[in-house]
Amino acid sequence: MTYKAFTEQDAIDRVRTLGLIGDGAVEAEEIGDGNLNLVFRIREGEHRLILKQALPYAKVVGESWPLSLERAWIEQSALREFARHAVPFVPRVFHASHEEAYTVMEDLSHLTIVRSGLLAGEQYPLLAEHIGSYLARTLFHTSDFALGPVEKKRVARTYYNPDLCDITEKLIFTDPFHDAETNEIETGLEEEVARLWADDELKREVAKLEALFITKGDALLHGDLHTGSIFASATETKVIDPEFAFYGPFGFDVGQFIAHLFFAAYPDYPTRRDARIKDIDTFWLTFASTFRALWEREAVEPFQAPGLVDDVLSTILQDALGFAGCELIRRTIGLAPVADLESIDSTTERLERKRHALRLGAALIKRRTECRTFDDLRNFDVTEELSR
Amino acid sequence: MTYKAFTEQDAIDRVRTLGLIGDGAVEAEEIGDGNLNLVFRIREGEHRLILKQALPYAKVVGESWPLSLERAWIEQSALREFARHAVPFVPRVFHASHEEAYTVMEDLSHLTIVRSGLLAGEQYPLLAEHIGSYLARTLFHTSDFALGPVEKKRVARTYYNPDLCDITEKLIFTDPFHDAETNEIETGLEEEVARLWADDELKREVAKLEALFITKGDALLHGDLHTGSIFASATETKVIDPEFAFYGPFGFDVGQFIAHLFFAAYPDYPTRRDARIKDIDTFWLTFASTFRALWEREAVEPFQAPGLVDDVLSTILQDALGFAGCELIRRTIGLAPVADLESIDSTTERLERKRHALRLGAALIKRRTECRTFDDLRNFDVTEELSR
Repeated sequence: MTYKAFTEQDAIDRVRTLGLIGDGAVEAEEIGDGNLNLVFRIREGEHRLILKQALPYAKVVGESWPLSLERAWIEQSALREFARHAVPFVPRVFHASHEEAYTVMEDLSHLTIVRSGLLAGEQYPLLAEHIGSYLARTLFHTSDFALGPVEKKRVARTYYNPDLCDITEKLIFTDPFHDAETNEIETGLEEEVARLWADDELKREVAKLEALFITKGDALLHGDLHTGSIFASATETKVIDPEFAFYGPFGFDVGQFIAHLFFAAYPDYPTRRDARIKDIDTFWLTFASTFRALWEREAVEPFQAPGLVDDVLSTILQDALGFAGCELIRRTIGLAPVADLESIDSTTERLERKRHALRLGAALIKRRTECRTFDDLRNFDVTEELSR
Repeated sequence: MTYKAFTEQDAIDRVRTLGLIGDGAVEAEEIGDGNLNLVFRIREGEHRLILKQALPYAKVVGESWPLSLERAWIEQSALREFARHAVPFVPRVFHASHEEAYTVMEDLSHLTIVRSGLLAGEQYPLLAEHIGSYLARTLFHTSDFALGPVEKKRVARTYYNPDLCDITEKLIFTDPFHDAETNEIETGLEEEVARLWADDELKREVAKLEALFITKGDALLHGDLHTGSIFASATETKVIDPEFAFYGPFGFDVGQFIAHLFFAAYPDYPTRRDARIKDIDTFWLTFASTFRALWEREAVEPFQAPGLVDDVLSTILQDALGFAGCELIRRTIGLAPVADLESIDSTTERLERKRHALRLGAALIKRRTECRTFDDLRNFDVTEELSR
């Protein structure tokens, strides 16, 4: 079968042919935001499925940004790989087609997208712990340290994902740090942004973080782990959409998630601040203790060397803080703004929060190597940075 | 054509069919050491060619260590890639067959292998400068910083070389640091070796260097750049045999070459010491200044950030010293001993030099991060370490 973008009827036909639904009355609805993919929810009574199909371009910047359909296969490969290591936190995949670039998976509409839920005042008391566990397990188990270098090289070959990595390289590390067309800078932020663009130390440190992103293949990353890629309830957490998956540095997913917990503190600031700082704390403690336990129990020789895992965790922390800083800056002035900031009604407050995000981002990037342990981040006084 | 190991007549038939020799009287001679490859020198009067064919196993440890024939294709791809950036230092490739795993290339018998030449008292006044230039050009031009991340990922896909990387991982980073069967420890060194094996700090630092080797894909490395992989004369230098080529950390080739210049100081020690230390100096200065000049002129944005190349060069230096330390240790007590040490007739002196190599290796590994610039290596007092 050659690729074509599906209609709702095409989606129904596929899942019926696959025997994933019966012969009863079936409805299908396209519910995606349509930027990169079509997302069909298919219902047969109480039975629900999602069929997600990649589009051959990114609509967000017009149809002129072509994207390889290969990413759909990468996404379903990553979902299956992540499920092997962290099954409670990954949607079930029922079928995937390489040629037609679609995946049929579990519907999660009993849960809410974390970004919208937090904005609406929902609580996710297990979110930070669940994501800490999810990342420790997926990062460790797809690394050389669990798989051994030969098997890791074999697994890593699947995740050749230059198009999507290129988006990250441009939108996170490059464009926000100079006057690029993709930026969306709110009126009133010009002075703050000019200061960023004149900061040579900042630009050098960002270039180092980009170099790390493009050269270090520690583990299979989700690649886009923000609060819009997580479905949750008070008891359940599911990480979706790993189409940016590739072999990258341990600290990248960790840092992106931290950045989006910072963002979640901005609406109703400073009321929600302490809860989100506590989430970051819980997240890191869970991540670090789980990662350490897995390493100590399962790392292949010679990586059981005494003290090595401490160094690895310090490096992950420092890198993560740097990546978090980049994400804070790019989501504040770059192409893909976050509702956490944009939904703040008062212009004065919104600009104030955006300035905070830019300053916190720059501080995390430039001062990340001061943090040997997470306690050093506390000394670093994030709350002060936030309120400066 | 399916693969079979060639006879001399097969080698002649291939180059004749390819039109690389004429119809005159032709002689062929197998001149390889036969560990991993067959090497035929083919002569028609004054006209000479080399046909090198991979064997499907490593003989050095018996036929029980199977090796992918794919490495022959990787080797010729690397030779062609390196020639694009450093043509004076790479043998010409005339033809390569993927299926039959052979490459026809320039014969270099007017030159000598550097290790044997140095042992015999030859001088190579341009060697250090040539290898510095060769490495700066090949490493920079195959990196993300010259190619951009998308093109680099495409180029890097060719160099999937798990079998040969596995040999390096085992023989350089793992086996010499515990009581492995592959080690060849001379009687009289047991105490020194026991000290290495009990040194937890050393083992942790070696594990970090191995982690770097397996996770960092900076540039296309030669992967086995010792003085036995270099042909030279007083005026010419050619780097051969890149079958270990893969995308790895910038510092690896640099460190291996430094280690083998140290080894070249051991015969007739300390008479040759100063000349070899001067070679290391010249090598690094040429490498660093050429790499810096290429970076400043050609690095893609945003890697022109002020000061970034200084950081990159510091990191290359530190990593290189660590890798040099590993190579010094593994060639002294591991599977592949070097003639520089083994040819020393006096047992007392040979053991003394071997102890030096082990101590210098351990010092370079543990103290590499003290060196921000090459001058710091001078303060570090390598000659003292050597003579301690």
